[in-house]
Amino acid sequence: MTLHSVPRRPLGVATIGYEFMGKAHSNAWRNVAAFFDVPAVEQKVLVGRDAAKVAEAAARHGWAESAIDWRSVLTREDINIVDICAPGSLHAEIAIAALEAGKHVLVEKPLANSLAESEAMTRAAAAARVNGVQSMVGFTYRRVPALALARELIAEGKLGEVRQVRAAYLQDWLADEQAPMTWRLRKDSAGSGALGDIASHAIDQIQFLLNDSVTEVSGRLHTFVSERPGPHGPEPVTVDDAAWATLTLAGGAVASVEVSRVALGRRNALQVEVFGTLGSLSFDLESLNELRFFDARQSGRVQGFSRILVTEPEHPYLDAWWPPGHVLGWEHSFTHQARDFLLAIAAGTEPSPSFEEGLAVQRVLSAVQESAAAKSSLIQIPGS
Amino acid sequence: MTLHSVPRRPLGVATIGYEFMGKAHSNAWRNVAAFFDVPAVEQKVLVGRDAAKVAEAAARHGWAESAIDWRSVLTREDINIVDICAPGSLHAEIAIAALEAGKHVLVEKPLANSLAESEAMTRAAAAARVNGVQSMVGFTYRRVPALALARELIAEGKLGEVRQVRAAYLQDWLADEQAPMTWRLRKDSAGSGALGDIASHAIDQIQFLLNDSVTEVSGRLHTFVSERPGPHGPEPVTVDDAAWATLTLAGGAVASVEVSRVALGRRNALQVEVFGTLGSLSFDLESLNELRFFDARQSGRVQGFSRILVTEPEHPYLDAWWPPGHVLGWEHSFTHQARDFLLAIAAGTEPSPSFEEGLAVQRVLSAVQESAAAKSSLIQIPGS
Amino acid sequence: MTLHSVPRRPLGVATIGYEFMGKAHSNAWRNVAAFFDVPAVEQKVLVGRDAAKVAEAAARHGWAESAIDWRSVLTREDINIVDICAPGSLHAEIAIAALEAGKHVLVEKPLANSLAESEAMTRAAAAARVNGVQSMVGFTYRRVPALALARELIAEGKLGEVRQVRAAYLQDWLADEQAPMTWRLRKDSAGSGALGDIASHAIDQIQFLLNDSVTEVSGRLHTFVSERPGPHGPEPVTVDDAAWATLTLAGGAVASVEVSRVALGRRNALQVEVFGTLGSLSFDLESLNELRFFDARQSGRVQGFSRILVTEPEHPYLDAWWPPGHVLGWEHSFTHQARDFLLAIAAGTEPSPSFEEGLAVQRVLSAVQESAAAKSSLIQIPGS
Amino acid sequence: MTLHSVPRRPLGVATIGYEFMGKAHSNAWRNVAAFFDVPAVEQKVLVGRDAAKVAEAAARHGWAESAIDWRSVLTREDINIVDICAPGSLHAEIAIAALEAGKHVLVEKPLANSLAESEAMTRAAAAARVNGVQSMVGFTYRRVPALALARELIAEGKLGEVRQVRAAYLQDWLADEQAPMTWRLRKDSAGSGALGDIASHAIDQIQFLLNDSVTEVSGRLHTFVSERPGPHGPEPVTVDDAAWATLTLAGGAVASVEVSRVALGRRNALQVEVFGTLGSLSFDLESLNELRFFDARQSGRVQGFSRILVTEPEHPYLDAWWPPGHVLGWEHSFTHQARDFLLAIAAGTEPSPSFEEGLAVQRVLSAVQESAAAKSSLIQIPGS
Repeated sequence: MTLHSVPRRPLGVATIGYEFMGKAHSNAWRNVAAFFDVPAVEQKVLVGRDAAKVAEAAARHGWAESAIDWRSVLTREDINIVDICAPGSLHAEIAIAALEAGKHVLVEKPLANSLAESEAMTRAAAAARVNGVQSMVGFTYRRVPALALARELIAEGKLGEVRQVRAAYLQDWLADEQAPMTWRLRKDSAGSGALGDIASHAIDQIQFLLNDSVTEVSGRLHTFVSERPGPHGPEPVTVDDAAWATLTLAGGAVASVEVSRVALGRRNALQVEVFGTLGSLSFDLESLNELRFFDARQSGRVQGFSRILVTEPEHPYLDAWWPPGHVLGWEHSFTHQARDFLLAIAAGTEPSPSFEEGLAVQRVLSAVQESAAAKSSLIQIPGS
Repeated sequence: MTLHSVPRRPLGVATIGYEFMGKAHSNAWRNVAAFFDVPAVEQKVLVGRDAAKVAEAAARHGWAESAIDWRSVLTREDINIVDICAPGSLHAEIAIAALEAGKHVLVEKPLANSLAESEAMTRAAAAARVNGVQSMVGFTYRRVPALALARELIAEGKLGEVRQVRAAYLQDWLADEQAPMTWRLRKDSAGSGALGDIASHAIDQIQFLLNDSVTEVSGRLHTFVSERPGPHGPEPVTVDDAAWATLTLAGGAVASVEVSRVALGRRNALQVEVFGTLGSLSFDLESLNELRFFDARQSGRVQGFSRILVTEPEHPYLDAWWPPGHVLGWEHSFTHQARDFLLAIAAGTEPSPSFEEGLAVQRVLSAVQESAAAKSSLIQIPGS
Repeated sequence: MTLHSVPRRPLGVATIGYEFMGKAHSNAWRNVAAFFDVPAVEQKVLVGRDAAKVAEAAARHGWAESAIDWRSVLTREDINIVDICAPGSLHAEIAIAALEAGKHVLVEKPLANSLAESEAMTRAAAAARVNGVQSMVGFTYRRVPALALARELIAEGKLGEVRQVRAAYLQDWLADEQAPMTWRLRKDSAGSGALGDIASHAIDQIQFLLNDSVTEVSGRLHTFVSERPGPHGPEPVTVDDAAWATLTLAGGAVASVEVSRVALGRRNALQVEVFGTLGSLSFDLESLNELRFFDARQSGRVQGFSRILVTEPEHPYLDAWWPPGHVLGWEHSFTHQARDFLLAIAAGTEPSPSFEEGLAVQRVLSAVQESAAAKSSLIQIPGS
Repeated sequence: MTLHSVPRRPLGVATIGYEFMGKAHSNAWRNVAAFFDVPAVEQKVLVGRDAAKVAEAAARHGWAESAIDWRSVLTREDINIVDICAPGSLHAEIAIAALEAGKHVLVEKPLANSLAESEAMTRAAAAARVNGVQSMVGFTYRRVPALALARELIAEGKLGEVRQVRAAYLQDWLADEQAPMTWRLRKDSAGSGALGDIASHAIDQIQFLLNDSVTEVSGRLHTFVSERPGPHGPEPVTVDDAAWATLTLAGGAVASVEVSRVALGRRNALQVEVFGTLGSLSFDLESLNELRFFDARQSGRVQGFSRILVTEPEHPYLDAWWPPGHVLGWEHSFTHQARDFLLAIAAGTEPSPSFEEGLAVQRVLSAVQESAAAKSSLIQIPGS
């Protein structure tokens, strides 16, 4: 890949949030330039609300400074990128302010907790784009090499026309009914449960892999454990533990989605199966270096799902890493995301997934909720 | 197993139908007594409409005679069991007549093509039962040892309370859009497509494994290839290629079902996953000697899905066969079915799955169709 | 398949032995004609030393008669095939007498307990063959469809030139050191332990799959549990629990063999991997319907071991059974063996594996023992 | 983990070599402190022979400086650790000089190309240790969490007494006979082929997992492609492509080792199976987040190899990374190695694997070569 336009000064980054996602993003910024030919980048400021904790995290994860007020980074000339890992309820406010301040914005998924916020962010992104200010939403699983390869194979026609898709995201961290109450289980703070948190990934993958969009949805939500130990005694769980949906795609495919946080034994299983007229694909995030591919154009005697170990130099992102057979981990997809965002900024091209793509996922999630509230009746996606 | 009551004379069997299912049932009758301690049984008559073909099939599969009129066997004193492998549209007529003639009846699944016929058969079975005449519907997958073991483990509480079930039955024999028209693709003859043919298995398994019943259904049907080459040119396909449903169980579990005949690369994949509060199970008919079991009571350091090779003498049906590690095939479940039916007849107990259980599956299938016709809206199962 | 020469009268079979192997062979004779177009065959006599037990087994497994003296069947005109499932120490005597009496002979593996006996049997087979009397040794795993397919793929050049083979046969029925003494653990009665019992299968597979012969051997034997509970107290185990060998093939390949009866968790795992210049294969008897195939001529982006479910009509033996995806079991390979033996008799062609092929395996086993006794030094196979 | 003694100043590191291993080690030094509580560490100097290339690599991988003479770092006060990723033929000279200069030394595996050099290095390490100067050899696979867990489980007795071990390391980068000649294929520069490069890992794992030592060896070496395209035309390959060995362990276990660079389809498959009296384990580096565990103390009905996804906080090294189910990659084991080396230096304890342990592996490799040259005859390991 040739870099068309490398800025003179390093791109300065501020990341907002230092917990799980902040740690994963920090790791990406710290390592991206060691593996990929990207514009020079500097970890300038890590932002968080607890001064002591964010200072410690900043020191640990390679940041030059820490700060407690996210607004402070918007006025700094040496900050070019604002990377938002704060809770979903803050996404809109920070992202819009940062875009208006002329900062490129990377925001964690989901885009926001509400459709209204998502739409406002998307408008802000469109306005900023005119001025060369870029934005991106962090559906990092698009950068898992096996899934990026899956998209390539589908785009090349190796599956023919896609008919049926099965997507599931199964976790089990809430299987224990004594697992305590958290902000993630309150509708006020989290918006929804498994739906927004993990079905969002599944739905984004479907649209990404097929390069298509959902037009119609039937959905169902369920809470298996309706009360959990809270700080002041038992507290009602106000979000879903599990969600189901069937989706119609504009191109004619039908997809199913099932997600759960009580699927005992599945730790982090984003599973996708795509069935086409000429071939099929199968993937599981718990074995993220592998893609299964069935090629119906092979002779019937040797047809079968092949286990592609996605570690060859011709696989997406792999030439930067290790020799064949030396597998990657979960966090590498964040490094790939940082690479692609930096390259897009340098080239002045629009990174993907854009806020529009993030909004498209939000619209599907919203329709699932609406359908679930209406006895699973099919709901049209507005504008589709 | 001790036989409490062995009839003096061998039980005479007449099987009606000699194609795929007739071949599988013949194999069971021919072999059951070699492996299991069952009442003496004789393959008396194989019945089919084409005299020459049925005669050849009878000779090949070990039958003493062949016949072309199924009514002829009802009046024979030496026939004790009528085994119906004829098309679904004939099930009701034959079964009711046979029961009224005092013959024990085994009928292939699904019980019938319509709810009304299924209900009439169930009434006939109830009436006959009073006279010691037994009846059973052929959901043979209940006798796959791994699934029988799964039911045992669930009944023993090894999974705790079951919350979520995922069932799929994926085939691909219709993936090729040039695959020709058959009676199975016409609503008149087949009733429905993948729904009645294979979703029936998935739904029966859910009710069997959980020992529970479905109360509520949301469903969806789709035909991916709407026209196929017929004997007189292109002909419309009037049944579904694929079906989806979510099911509420009386005990509180939620199950999803997805079936397809166009899932390229899946030859005969009845896949079931059951997630409980203490453990989980996973099964795939393409690897039918294996059951995966996750036991959350194990230490976290060694937890994981274990691959149980279901060939140990303590596994269901296995002490009759071969040493550990010597695997069984698909047709063995029919031999197990013959065994269980013969033992129930000998003992005068009611075999399972009964016609009532077959009817229960029909009611769910019917509700799926009704929901699919009503934009996937949730439908209550009558009487549940 | 067309039958070139069908005998007028059914071929009469006598099987000698009614335990594990007798049961498997009986099953094959009882079922072969239901699935395959073979000459008419009749189960005439089952022979065993215990009159009551053999009579019961005969009744159960479909035999017309039972007998206690194997010699009695040699003089009967209605017996055409003598099928020897007796202990290895009796193979030579029975087989030679039967061949001399003009009976076609199928003998279980290994051919005999000693090289001298194996050589005498091979001479008798060669003499009988001149008179149209056929003989075969029961390496049934050659008839597992996945392994038969593997041989075809290799013969067609799909692997290019084979370089390296890894074969293992892992069982665990002796893992428990309290498992009692049996005749199989005494050198006098069994000849050897895991070596003769299961390494014989592994070595036959190597020679079968590659259509090649072993020229040179280095071997090792080990007994992990040297004493076991006998009928009169602790008794020394005088055979091996495990064996290792490396083999040179005439064509230049190198193969490793490892077998064990103490490999805890492996119930019946005959595992074979074949690595060539253009492709590779992998197989495990515990999943006997599957063959893994790696095709290096595929593009690097989609290369991977494909899991072939060996249930397609174009796979060996499969068109006789069930639709795709309906898997076979362990005993089906015996039915295939009966088919091939009957067809060879009818056609007057030489069945394979012949006694010569059985002898070739014995020579390798003998060389392993010799090498093991000589500090693993390489031993040439005589005559190779 | 509590740090008992943290040095005042950061530990300065110089890494010698900037190719594949230099890149992996650089990554570890750059990231170790972000995830683990270790003494402060600084990437001071990257050393290589090509000034331009090493300068570029240093900039990319986070080093403060680059240098072309490894001796220059030995006299620098700010260098505490010398990390040797240079070719094996330079290990002895650099390591001994560094130890004598009072630098802690981490050296890539194998320890050296010859036994004599390995012994000299071990003597130097022992002498330096007296002065608190530490040394370690880079068998990083000991730090793959699944293998570290395997060692724990064995040490805790979960497998009972280990009897049989199967280790293989299968790669395929030399399967193509047109793959060009390199220094790795010349005996002068590489010492040996697959044996030293990858059998060394397999042998170290056996001794590590069992905490035992090899006493006796039978070995075999083979070169499948004896000539390859060199810079001046065809050139003979003077090292092995594949190697086989059986090993006796002091504690009574028997292990087999098979390694290959022509095992088409196996990219980087270090496979280990350990069979004990109470349990078994199985591992494959291509799926490095998984460990299979068979527990014979479970009821026979549910026994089976469980797939442990080694991503739980109670698994070795995992509490530093991501939530359960978020998998690690190949290079993480180098980060773990850096952590353990730093902690040992801080604590003044001896890191493992020591040079003595590296030498023990060399002695086994040497015995394999000796045995291979003597028709595979068993060779005693000196001093065992």
